Amino acid sequence: MKKSARQKIAQLSGRIAVRSAKLVELWRGGQRESLHRGHAVICDDKGVVEAWGDPSRIVFPRSSCKMVQALPLIESGAAEAAGLTSRQLALACGSHSGGRIHVEAVAGWLDGLNLTEPDLRCGAHMPRDRDENRRLTCSDQPPCQFHNNCSGKHAGFLTLNRHLRGGPDYVAPDHPAQRAVKQTFEEVTGETSPGHGIDGCSAPNWSCSLEGLARAMAAFARPGGDRRGRAMRQLVDAMRAHPELVAGEGRACTVLMRAMRGSAAVKTGAEGVFVAILPDQGLGVAVKITDGATRASEAAITAILLHLGALEAADPAVSRFLTGPIRNWRGLVTGEMRRARGFPS
Amino acid sequence: MKKSARQKIAQLSGRIAVRSAKLVELWRGGQRESLHRGHAVICDDKGVVEAWGDPSRIVFPRSSCKMVQALPLIESGAAEAAGLTSRQLALACGSHSGGRIHVEAVAGWLDGLNLTEPDLRCGAHMPRDRDENRRLTCSDQPPCQFHNNCSGKHAGFLTLNRHLRGGPDYVAPDHPAQRAVKQTFEEVTGETSPGHGIDGCSAPNWSCSLEGLARAMAAFARPGGDRRGRAMRQLVDAMRAHPELVAGEGRACTVLMRAMRGSAAVKTGAEGVFVAILPDQGLGVAVKITDGATRASEAAITAILLHLGALEAADPAVSRFLTGPIRNWRGLVTGEMRRARGFPS
Repeated sequence: MKKSARQKIAQLSGRIAVRSAKLVELWRGGQRESLHRGHAVICDDKGVVEAWGDPSRIVFPRSSCKMVQALPLIESGAAEAAGLTSRQLALACGSHSGGRIHVEAVAGWLDGLNLTEPDLRCGAHMPRDRDENRRLTCSDQPPCQFHNNCSGKHAGFLTLNRHLRGGPDYVAPDHPAQRAVKQTFEEVTGETSPGHGIDGCSAPNWSCSLEGLARAMAAFARPGGDRRGRAMRQLVDAMRAHPELVAGEGRACTVLMRAMRGSAAVKTGAEGVFVAILPDQGLGVAVKITDGATRASEAAITAILLHLGALEAADPAVSRFLTGPIRNWRGLVTGEMRRARGFPS
Repeated sequence: MKKSARQKIAQLSGRIAVRSAKLVELWRGGQRESLHRGHAVICDDKGVVEAWGDPSRIVFPRSSCKMVQALPLIESGAAEAAGLTSRQLALACGSHSGGRIHVEAVAGWLDGLNLTEPDLRCGAHMPRDRDENRRLTCSDQPPCQFHNNCSGKHAGFLTLNRHLRGGPDYVAPDHPAQRAVKQTFEEVTGETSPGHGIDGCSAPNWSCSLEGLARAMAAFARPGGDRRGRAMRQLVDAMRAHPELVAGEGRACTVLMRAMRGSAAVKTGAEGVFVAILPDQGLGVAVKITDGATRASEAAITAILLHLGALEAADPAVSRFLTGPIRNWRGLVTGEMRRARGFPS
């Protein structure tokens, strides 16, 4: 593992925790206006390959671990019993924009389970998808739970629950579905979770070290031949095959996966988390921006994918999330985003 | 000036710059999920009264210094010559929501100057105001420059420009209107600005130390009897009298000024800046969140107003921006915001 000077000093001084690292800066008029600190880790199947900040920092993966939360769905045999397609598996791992393509797919999925919208426990919010948002706004229709960006994950929970014959409150931390998720999460991160928080979609979200999250992503990057390995491969293949179902048009996950032509899977999480799975290199990446900013987690994961050669500097996705100028309402360039010194190299 | 331990250590060790301070934290499931660092300064007419982080940190005030940018409008005699009302002065200091009330007021203002929308240089963006945004969205109408949150400031620039007989490009840094703004800005901050950046509305935004910004706000809080003092009093009175024109329904500036019943004026700025003017105490406050997060600048200024006794803990505005629980789409409490240890006391 390559260590930063600060990490070496911290180790020598016997400190356990390492300070966060400067990752992304915003510049205006030749002066640094804002700074995003955070932690980033790259792991292979042996452990940490490279890190910035503190790999041992405990984080809530939020939606970035949806592919982990979807493992029991496949390993239990529930996905096969319900005849789930690759598109449905991609939706289970996604935080979609609530467009027609997403809403109709989730509605159809529940219909196939003889369930209806009220069976979901994710809650309703207006969709990010511009056309669907406009349709609801201008027809005075409220959004439904199918519009929730996590409805695909919840359809997966309901499918697992049908198989486990659990009760209707499938988001309760002690519900069989969530107990299965917790056990799997601790197995793939290789850690006992310090505890859980309730996510925006009401499901429990278990915390782990950023290194544990990157370790789990590395396992998805180089899955074994066993039942778990096959489940991991199915989910990564589904995400790479259907980037438009993992997020939506214009969103970072969709744009970055398309830019990498399916060579890697990436997933964002609320409060500045982003992960990447790189099968060709057998690497897993996890990023947490201390302040929770999405603009910074998108820039940081783009910087690391560039650093690893998974993205090309000339790709429009790179200028969009990292190197492109920041323009104002009249199109004038007002500033730029910069990688902090030493990040990622 | 009360100094934090870190500030004392930094002084003893002869360092000029002091590290940012932990100001606002987000907690979920009993674990800290995100952290916002920053700098905050309280000044009176003699200088710094209390500070967190580094008072000498250079910042772009962005929209938080609109009352400073409006001083030449009054001091030049342009406002009186144009017969500007208190409502128009409030709009000149505001970052409005682009609601009908704001759009019609600015349109009428330009009409009174025999100018039209294309004379503005702020650019157009969709309004925050829900009703106006919906009206434009559902009638397929694009927003115009009147909708720009800075259109009141720009109407002020045009009024000043009419008086100065300057050219049409009133946002050029070397235009007489902006030269007057720069000179005034350096006088009230008591500093020579390191330089300017181009703001979202295309106007130059001059940088200064956070202490300089707080010092300027303290001058607005206890204005003298001279021409400048009278101009400062007019602007602060206008902001306090028309909180709905300084921002809009539900927005922090409007909600906080109403909660303080006009006893103080507050103004937000992009990238995590917030200032407060407290005439009763003769104090000026300036906050900069290092990462630029608005949720944190709103929480931090609320915490300081509470600390200074300008707000009451029981006020709904306090729970809204600082102490209230964070709920998800189903209304479940998922977390809370906390003041970091030592902030503000």
